[in-house]
Amino acid sequence: MYPDSIQSLIESFKCLPGIGEKTAERLAFAILDLEDEQIELFSQTLGEVKNNIHLCSKCNTLTENDLCFICSDNSRNDDILCVVEDTKNVFLFEKLGVFTGKYHVLQGLISPLDGINPEDIGLDKLIDRIKNEKFKEIILAFKPSIEGETTALYINKILDGMGITITRLASGVPIGADMEYVDSLTLERALNDRKKIE
Amino acid sequence: MYPDSIQSLIESFKCLPGIGEKTAERLAFAILDLEDEQIELFSQTLGEVKNNIHLCSKCNTLTENDLCFICSDNSRNDDILCVVEDTKNVFLFEKLGVFTGKYHVLQGLISPLDGINPEDIGLDKLIDRIKNEKFKEIILAFKPSIEGETTALYINKILDGMGITITRLASGVPIGADMEYVDSLTLERALNDRKKIE
Repeated sequence: MYPDSIQSLIESFKCLPGIGEKTAERLAFAILDLEDEQIELFSQTLGEVKNNIHLCSKCNTLTENDLCFICSDNSRNDDILCVVEDTKNVFLFEKLGVFTGKYHVLQGLISPLDGINPEDIGLDKLIDRIKNEKFKEIILAFKPSIEGETTALYINKILDGMGITITRLASGVPIGADMEYVDSLTLERALNDRKKIE
Repeated sequence: MYPDSIQSLIESFKCLPGIGEKTAERLAFAILDLEDEQIELFSQTLGEVKNNIHLCSKCNTLTENDLCFICSDNSRNDDILCVVEDTKNVFLFEKLGVFTGKYHVLQGLISPLDGINPEDIGLDKLIDRIKNEKFKEIILAFKPSIEGETTALYINKILDGMGITITRLASGVPIGADMEYVDSLTLERALNDRKKIE
């Protein structure tokens, strides 16, 4: 029913997460309302982004250079390494602006049920890096899930005896949440990890 | 903070309606997960769509040919013309699959407050077409709003005396709506336009 090029644009938008038929149609028509220069820039960036972007040779964060903006920044704290499961989380933490250490990005989390084993998520590179650099603390900033806990325990075991402090993010009741809507596992964790008020 | 090409992609997505900072970021990263061929097709379609698409020379529906899929379809009913304010509405009606007549797309609705006068929405082409073809009924399928009513009244006045039936879409309580949530203007219209149960 739609002209071919609009239909093709709709199909392309539908490949993106959270975009269904209706939204894809709306977006495709919206493209026609953009300025020619906007469309050209969009199309060009889209075509080039995957060639321009690759993993930082040191920490795996997405970058256009050999080293990412964190690894090439000499003012960062070399003592603390924050290990995340996805490059997006680096930008998430950086937006907070409170962490001044370095990052390392894994290719996901260990998940034996999905056939993802320790060798699949780039742990070798992480361990090599930890052996070569002099970190005092490693923060394992994974999501609180079976996969997150498994990966954290596995890394903790490998690094055992190297004299490095291994920490994980605090888990508990989110700020602003109503107690009645907090799930029981989270509540249990919050209770077990309770903190002294000082 | 983001690599340039990702930042540029985020800005492009943000030009689209209903897409804010967070969604744009999510979509930009999702692009990196697509197959190379998918991205290439997306980029190519995007770059070409505005060149490929133009208005049907007869009815203004978006098309890649001289005549749109409706105007070039000889099996359509030549007696009824449905006038809409936006090309999207043609596809909306076609999806219903119940209307078998022809369409004519205006460039919006008359809105003196926004400086949009009758000569700005392509009424000349519509009137010429009505004079040349032999329609028995013209459906003015505009949204029920001041602009929609103004445009309908204006067209009705021009076509007065040509012996053509001019109709508008029924307005009233939407199917499935709770009466208490229906606004008073709609309720008043539904009451005035009440239908005999037969």
